[in-house]
Formats: sequence, structure tokens, C-alpha cells
Amino acid sequence: MPALPRIALSCGEPAGIGPDLCVLLAQREWPCELVAFGSPDVLEQRARQMNIPLQVENFATHAPSIPHRPGRLTVQPIPLAAPVDSGRLDARNARHVLDLLAAATQGCLAGRFDALVTAPVHKGVINDAGIPFTGHTEFLAELTGGKPVMLLAAPGLRVALATTHLPLSEVSSHITRESLTETLAILHGDLQRRFGLPNPRILVCGLNPHAGEGGHLGREEIDTLIPVVEQLKERGMRLEGPLPADTLFLPRNLERADAVLAMYHDQGLPVLKYMGFGQAVNITLGLPIIRTSVDHGTALDLAGTGRAEVDSLIAALQTALEMIRHT
Amino acid sequence: MPALPRIALSCGEPAGIGPDLCVLLAQREWPCELVAFGSPDVLEQRARQMNIPLQVENFATHAPSIPHRPGRLTVQPIPLAAPVDSGRLDARNARHVLDLLAAATQGCLAGRFDALVTAPVHKGVINDAGIPFTGHTEFLAELTGGKPVMLLAAPGLRVALATTHLPLSEVSSHITRESLTETLAILHGDLQRRFGLPNPRILVCGLNPHAGEGGHLGREEIDTLIPVVEQLKERGMRLEGPLPADTLFLPRNLERADAVLAMYHDQGLPVLKYMGFGQAVNITLGLPIIRTSVDHGTALDLAGTGRAEVDSLIAALQTALEMIRHT
Repeated sequence: MPALPRIALSCGEPAGIGPDLCVLLAQREWPCELVAFGSPDVLEQRARQMNIPLQVENFATHAPSIPHRPGRLTVQPIPLAAPVDSGRLDARNARHVLDLLAAATQGCLAGRFDALVTAPVHKGVINDAGIPFTGHTEFLAELTGGKPVMLLAAPGLRVALATTHLPLSEVSSHITRESLTETLAILHGDLQRRFGLPNPRILVCGLNPHAGEGGHLGREEIDTLIPVVEQLKERGMRLEGPLPADTLFLPRNLERADAVLAMYHDQGLPVLKYMGFGQAVNITLGLPIIRTSVDHGTALDLAGTGRAEVDSLIAALQTALEMIRHT
Repeated sequence: MPALPRIALSCGEPAGIGPDLCVLLAQREWPCELVAFGSPDVLEQRARQMNIPLQVENFATHAPSIPHRPGRLTVQPIPLAAPVDSGRLDARNARHVLDLLAAATQGCLAGRFDALVTAPVHKGVINDAGIPFTGHTEFLAELTGGKPVMLLAAPGLRVALATTHLPLSEVSSHITRESLTETLAILHGDLQRRFGLPNPRILVCGLNPHAGEGGHLGREEIDTLIPVVEQLKERGMRLEGPLPADTLFLPRNLERADAVLAMYHDQGLPVLKYMGFGQAVNITLGLPIIRTSVDHGTALDLAGTGRAEVDSLIAALQTALEMIRHT
């Protein structure tokens, strides 16, 4: 029998709903050990604000993993620089957020944890603290030395992105034969390795409307997408495309797909999030560690109110456990 | 009591499924008169191929309108240049397609018809015939002197587009304060005039992912979208945005919208078509006539087989009748 999985749970931005969600997650039974990286004080404060009983315990690195016990939460304490007011950002705690992420990631890299599951961070306050930070995913990629590919998953649909957080006008120039080949290779490989799909089927969106309509609506399909897809098909990948994105997501097409590769953020995510309805999970492929995340932000106005929805974090944890099983 | 509406039904590309759909549509009862613009021979041939009884009658322009009788179809004959083989394009008949569209449109402009409902055309074969043709909508706009705004409708969602059939890399430069103001004015005005919404609520998508995230992911929101939205709100329009497109389409947001304005084709249409599930309707706003259309292409491989789905054309006709009622 394999050892019980041990999950590093990042509390994220302490003023946001991350700690609330960790408290809520801890109320349930889980077939794994959960270790929250964050401030024990904030977790206890947030539990009190929500009127939820919580017993916080310090994590003992070398103990064998034990199943999570509802109502308790094992914490790897990460020091704060300033006291936390629910809902109020404080740039002095930006370093705390990066510290807890780094500690959790190092734990995964060292094999002490089987996966990293993250609550939301707030990019703006980290930048306000004078720390260059383009995103959660990019930060983890730098720490682990991977090339990240963003995959969003909802029941019935997985969408990976060829480009992520770029101005729309820069999308086309960032899609090259090299980058697209690498993205598809990572998507294909991680669907095999982490999702138990020996021969995954991937539908590839066109970049332009109607997938360029034979060059009438843009040349990128002819110059870049079609050559890459054809070459990878010759190497044995089950790819189809580039297909017009407006009809690709019709159920009759999704039936024959394990994942869709969208060329950019707003091509693939509106339909994914509509289908996911608050239960979408953000997965980072291409890293040496398993990492899943909520698909929403810090929702500062909900911190401490008890009105934050834990569904996406639950789905993120379930997805991480599924990926661990298949790996 | 208002006169019975009279609808001009364009058969579109004769080798595609347009004639099939018109035959299928004619089998039902409709609270209007239907007049098909196309080839009577092709309609009769297609009905025989599908084993569907059809009695074709020539349209008498000056007769009073009479309710449609199932199994019959009134036709305004438009001459073909070459015989039609189901499923096989022939550039010699490209002019026939434009002639029938022009005749139907002139009939609407002259007040002889209350709306134009169109089956699909095939852009490629018209271009192959050496006729410059960028699209159905653009052709109708030129004939009628309107500024077209494309609106797609599915049950529960209407999505208008700020730009339509452009390479992705050209989208940003085509969205100016002037063009966006004009598009929103047409959308607002036609929702009032044609849909019976005295004070329509419109959600506006950002152009960039996360609606530009305060300028970190593109400047168009700050330079163009926000100023236009604010100015039009001051004039009394109920606008909200620019909003991140990936979460805008969540049901909790759509609840407070009569329409969404997407900035480009593949930002708004994947989710609309997913929701519409074969019943989406393409509506052209900004014209002096009412025009609705199917949301699919000519499906050449299905012509004459009896397997073409008539749902979108039914929805297009129903939408046209609804718009006539409100106008």
C-alpha cells in the first residue's frame, strides 16, 4: 500500500479569503494529510470570525503522515511582518506570501509533500511592495525550474493555454513553432503521466476566427499551427486542428477530446468557467511537482465573513489527489 | 390588428443545406407568410431527395399576405446559371446567390417584407467566382447603407461583437473610441427598438485578459474602453465594464444583463454557441431592415441527405417574428 499522500496547502494572501478556505477545507475528512503553510494566528482568527471550531497544530516534519482529522489543521508556521486585518491588504506582508509559497514548494521538491494546492495570492500588493511578480504560476516555475503550462479543468472539459497573461495584441507574436511544440509536448506528456491517459486526444484551437479561413483571416494557422500539428501527429500524438474556436466547444466535439489547447486566455476560459460554475481548477503542468489551485482571486470583501465558497479549493485538492494516484 | 408578417427567406448557397432547411421549415405552421428567394427547381429536387412532399408556388407580389400552409412553399424564383448538384459548389452560381440576397433585401427595403431570414452562403465559392465578398453581413450592410453590428442570441444570452471577421492581431487597432461608441449606441438602440427593452443592461468585456488588470496586461481598457463606457453611462446607458471576459459569463453575472458586448469573435462566441447548442441565431443590428440568420455554414456533405438540422433556421425565424412584434 502506498504511503498516505501529504499535501502542502498554501494559505496565500493572508488578508484575502485564502485562510478562510483553508479553515473550511479542514472541516471535512480527506484521504491524505493536509499541512497548511501560513500564519497559525490568522487561521485561528479567521476560524473565530466565522464561528467555526478549529484546533491548530504545528507540523512535525519527520513524523509519518496521518489522515486529516476534521476540525484540526496542521500548520507549518510562516512568520508575518505585520498583524493582519481581514480584507485589508498590507504590503509589509507581501514577503510572507512569497515565503510560504517558497517553503511549500521546497517541501514538494524535496519529496516531503506529494502536491502543492494553493489558495489565491494578490499580485498587486506584491508589486506594491517593490517585488517584481508576474504571477503565481510564473513564480513557481522559477522556483522549480519548469516550463509552466496552464491547464484549467471543469467537469467534462480540460483547457490548456498556449499563452496566458499577455496583452491581446502580443498574443500572435508569442506563438512560435518552438513554443507551440513545447506546449503540446508538455500537455501530451502530463496527460499521460499525471492523468492516466496513455494516448490523450487533444483538440487545438485556431488563433484567428474560423481558424483563419484558409488564410483570409490571418496567416498564423498556415505558417505556424498547421505545420506544428502535422509534425506532432507524425510523431504519434492524437491531435486535431487547428479548429474554429467558436464551434470547437460544442458537446459533439468535446466528446472526442481529453483536452483542448486554446491559443490565449479569453478564447478558452469563458466557456470553461461557464461549464465549471465555480468548481474549475487551475493546474500547472510542466513542473517537476504537482500543483493545483483555485480558479478565483482573493475576494477581499468576503474575508472573515463566512460567505467565501470553498468549492474550487475542494476541487483543487481532489484533482491533486487524482493526479497523485495516476503519477 | 396588424397585417400578417411576410418574411423573405433566402435559400443561400444552392449546393449547400440552405434549400433543405427551407423545405424542412415549410413543413410547419407559421404565424406569417414565408416567401423563399431561390430556385424552385432546386427546392423541388431537394424535397424529392429527402422524400418530403412539397408544393412550390410562385410568389404574387401584390397579393395580400396569407398564413404559411405546411407542405407548400411560396417562391420568388431567381435564375440559376448552371444546374445544381447537391453538395457540389459551382462558381457559376455565385451570382445567383448574390442576386437572391439582393432581391430579398430590396423587398425588405421597399416594405414588401417585414424581415429577411437567411440560410447560409459559401464565401469561398463567391470569391472563386472573382467577386469580392467579405461576408453575408457586410454585403447586406452595403446594400442597405447600414453600419452592421453582429449579435448572436441563444436562450439566456445575447452577445454582440465589437469586431467580427478580422485576424486576431488586428483586433486591437480596430477598436477606437469612435467605433466602440457607435457599436454601443446601435446595440442599445436596437435592443430598445427591436427587442422591447426600454432601458437595456449591457455588460462590456475587456479587450485584454483580466480586462487589462489596471494596465499591467494592456492599455486599451484605460485608453479606450473605460472612457467610452463612462461617457455613455453619463448619457444614461446602463453599461457595466470593462469586465474580465473569463468570469463575465458566469450565470450570476448574466442574470443582470440583457446583452454582452464582446470585443472580438472568439471571446464571445465559444460560450454563446456552447449555451445555444445548435439553436443560436445570428442577428444583424444597425440595418434599416430586420435580418436574422442561422449560425452555421453550408454543410455541403449533408445537402440532400435529410440529416441537416433545421433548429437554427427555426430559431432565426422565431427571432425575426419576435423582433417584428416589438418594432
